Amino acid sequence: MHHFEKSALEELSKIYRLNLMNSVTGYKSAHLLGTTSPSGVDNLAVFSSVVHLGSNPALVGFILRPTTVPRHSHANMKSTGVFTLNSISKVQIKDAHHTSAKYPEEISEFDQTHLKPERKAGWEAPYVQDAPIQMGCRYVNEYLIAENDTLLIVGSIEHLYIQEELLGTDGWVQLDKGEIVSINGLDGYALPKLVDRFEYARPKN
Amino acid sequence: MHHFEKSALEELSKIYRLNLMNSVTGYKSAHLLGTTSPSGVDNLAVFSSVVHLGSNPALVGFILRPTTVPRHSHANMKSTGVFTLNSISKVQIKDAHHTSAKYPEEISEFDQTHLKPERKAGWEAPYVQDAPIQMGCRYVNEYLIAENDTLLIVGSIEHLYIQEELLGTDGWVQLDKGEIVSINGLDGYALPKLVDRFEYARPKN
Repeated sequence: MHHFEKSALEELSKIYRLNLMNSVTGYKSAHLLGTTSPSGVDNLAVFSSVVHLGSNPALVGFILRPTTVPRHSHANMKSTGVFTLNSISKVQIKDAHHTSAKYPEEISEFDQTHLKPERKAGWEAPYVQDAPIQMGCRYVNEYLIAENDTLLIVGSIEHLYIQEELLGTDGWVQLDKGEIVSINGLDGYALPKLVDRFEYARPKN
Repeated sequence: MHHFEKSALEELSKIYRLNLMNSVTGYKSAHLLGTTSPSGVDNLAVFSSVVHLGSNPALVGFILRPTTVPRHSHANMKSTGVFTLNSISKVQIKDAHHTSAKYPEEISEFDQTHLKPERKAGWEAPYVQDAPIQMGCRYVNEYLIAENDTLLIVGSIEHLYIQEELLGTDGWVQLDKGEIVSINGLDGYALPKLVDRFEYARPKN
């Protein structure tokens, strides 16, 4: 196996290290985060760090690097109080990735891609049309990770929309039925297929 | 699409809600977290919330629900200062899932599965033999998420081992070459295949 020690990691070139460190923690969730600015411009940005924080209350979290693109997303969700998370299906990956380009705030990523905004009543942030799962989230809190000045954003799920064929009788959502992708590193998009689903694990004997 | 409002989510049965909320945030990374207790018992637990926190310094994060199984992992990493994260390949999923069974602290999950511990010099936590990616991590800090009393654990990567065939010339690690899985919900294991890798996105004209 290839072995990197801490000192070797620190000496890598920036791009090599970014590729490496973004890959080795495994597959990441793939979402498009939608917001609207106070002046009415929609913003859409791809995120790969959304995690489940809890079921009751329904909470999600994601990491924001203050120095990277999605600052518009952050400013907008703090202004309006809301954002959307939209799962990315295989046919959307090229456009989804393009939302990571650094457009000025007055440009909507919806106008620069084939992705279409979908307005739903009572929610001041755009969903992505045809996303297999759409979540209307309210900004709840943020935590500064002092070790590297990143933010953990906490949001609550207030509206959840799921394509019917993905939703099982026990509440489990089979993601591959929507061709939902996952992210490998900074720029790789992978399509998972279900291998197996196990029962609740109990000690042997 | 099926629509759940916040009030409907709150009224679901516990199991239905757990399945639902653990699925809708998308594919999760799959890791086995290895620790050793002060009395020398190895502990191994499956985690699906490991995220990349930063590349320089190399930091990972994961969520710990204080009320669930991996409390032994938490106590051990705080005692010894270290833990390991091991990616899960397709052939290991049944055993990996079984580590979520609630064994008493004096029982090592390595003895209850076919997974084998691998000791490496100078690291007081067991790696999982044949894991395509192994990370020796140091416990750095933890943050209490007050909204639901979960913890965000922050660790630094001090040793990184990668099977040679996964590691590209630009540092990107192609996870599907190691048949590394991702997790769908609480108990579904999926095998991703790379669809495409894109260039750094730049604004159109």
